[in-house]
Amino acid sequence: MAEGSDDIQALVALMARLPGLGPRSARRIVLHLIRKRTGQMTQLAQLLDSVAVNSRECLTCGNITDRDECAICADPARATREICVVQDVADLWALERGQAFKGRYHVLGGTLSALDEIGPDDLGIPSLIDRVTRDDIREVILALNATVDGQTTAHYIADALAGANVTVTGLAQGVPIGGELDYLDDGTISAALRARRRL
Amino acid sequence: MAEGSDDIQALVALMARLPGLGPRSARRIVLHLIRKRTGQMTQLAQLLDSVAVNSRECLTCGNITDRDECAICADPARATREICVVQDVADLWALERGQAFKGRYHVLGGTLSALDEIGPDDLGIPSLIDRVTRDDIREVILALNATVDGQTTAHYIADALAGANVTVTGLAQGVPIGGELDYLDDGTISAALRARRRL
Repeated sequence: MAEGSDDIQALVALMARLPGLGPRSARRIVLHLIRKRTGQMTQLAQLLDSVAVNSRECLTCGNITDRDECAICADPARATREICVVQDVADLWALERGQAFKGRYHVLGGTLSALDEIGPDDLGIPSLIDRVTRDDIREVILALNATVDGQTTAHYIADALAGANVTVTGLAQGVPIGGELDYLDDGTISAALRARRRL
Repeated sequence: MAEGSDDIQALVALMARLPGLGPRSARRIVLHLIRKRTGQMTQLAQLLDSVAVNSRECLTCGNITDRDECAICADPARATREICVVQDVADLWALERGQAFKGRYHVLGGTLSALDEIGPDDLGIPSLIDRVTRDDIREVILALNATVDGQTTAHYIADALAGANVTVTGLAQGVPIGGELDYLDDGTISAALRARRRL
C-alpha cells in the first residue's frame, strides 16, 4: 500500500476522476491537503458537505442555488422580460462574470442530440416556452455554444417560439477580442466577414 | 453573485488555491461535483474529513499514515537494515510505485537551504542518524532530487554518517528509460557518459 492508508488511496482515486485531474495531480493535491490537514483540508470537507446538502436547482431558471429561487430570479433590479438561454450553469456563470446582461436566465441542461437521444422534453425547453408565454417575455437571447448541437438547439427553440410574440436573438459571431486573424479558424473568419459592420 | 451561493463561491475560491488548479478548473470541478452532489461530492467530503482527522506522520520514518507506525515500518517482510532517504512523502510514494525497494524509508520533509534558513535540525536528519546507529543499519540510500539543494543535502548526510559503520549510496544518474538523447539536457548526457557501463 503505497499511499499511506485505505482512505488516502480512496481519496486519491476519487480526486483523479474529477474533470481535468489525473492520478498524478490528484496525489499532488492530496499530499498538499494532508500537509494542511487542520486548516484547508477540514474547511474543504465542510464546504463540500454544505454545498452537497444545500445546492439545488432554481425552480424558475435551473441555475444552481441554495434556495428555491436563485439570487438572479429573486433580484427585482433585473429586467424581467428578457431571458438569456444557456446550455449549462457554467455558461450562466461566464455571462455573469461578463456583467453585460441584466435580465433573467434559463438553463437548458444540455443540447438536443439525436446521437445521445436527448429530445426537447429532456431539456428545459417546455418550461422555457411556458415562461415566455406566462411572463410576457419581450426577448429571448439564445446564448448557446457555436457547435453543431448548440446551433441545432438554437434553431429548434427559435422555431418553437415563432408563434409567440417574442424577439429571438443569438450571440454575434466574429473575431474574439484580442484575437489574431492568423490564428483563427476559417469558419470564424468567414462568419466575421459576412457579419461585417460599418465603422 | 455569479456562483450560486456564498458557499459555492467559497468552495471555488478554496479549490482554486490547490496546486495545479486555478479559478477556471476550480469552477469546472465544483460544477461537476454539484451535478453529482448526492454521490461523489458527499463521498469526497467524507473522505477529506476522515483523512484530515486520521492522518499523521509515522513516528519512525515520517511517512503519512493513519496509525502511530506506517504500514511500511510495521511490515516484518521488509528489510530492516536498509533505509532509503527521501525529501517528501510524494517521493516515497513514487518509489513504492516502482516496487524496486524493499527496505524502510526516512522522510526528511525538505532539503537544506541557506536561502530559506532550513538547517539539519529542521529536517529529519538527527532522527536519521539516531536510527542508523540504533537499528544497526547497513545501507543508507540517498534518493534525493538531482537539484542543487537535493545534492547539497545528500553530501551533508553522507558527511554526517561518515563515522558510522554504514554504506551510503545515491541513485544513479543517466538517461531515463525511453529517453531520447536529442531531448536531454547537456548535464544529463555528460553524467550518463561519465557513469557509462560495460555491456
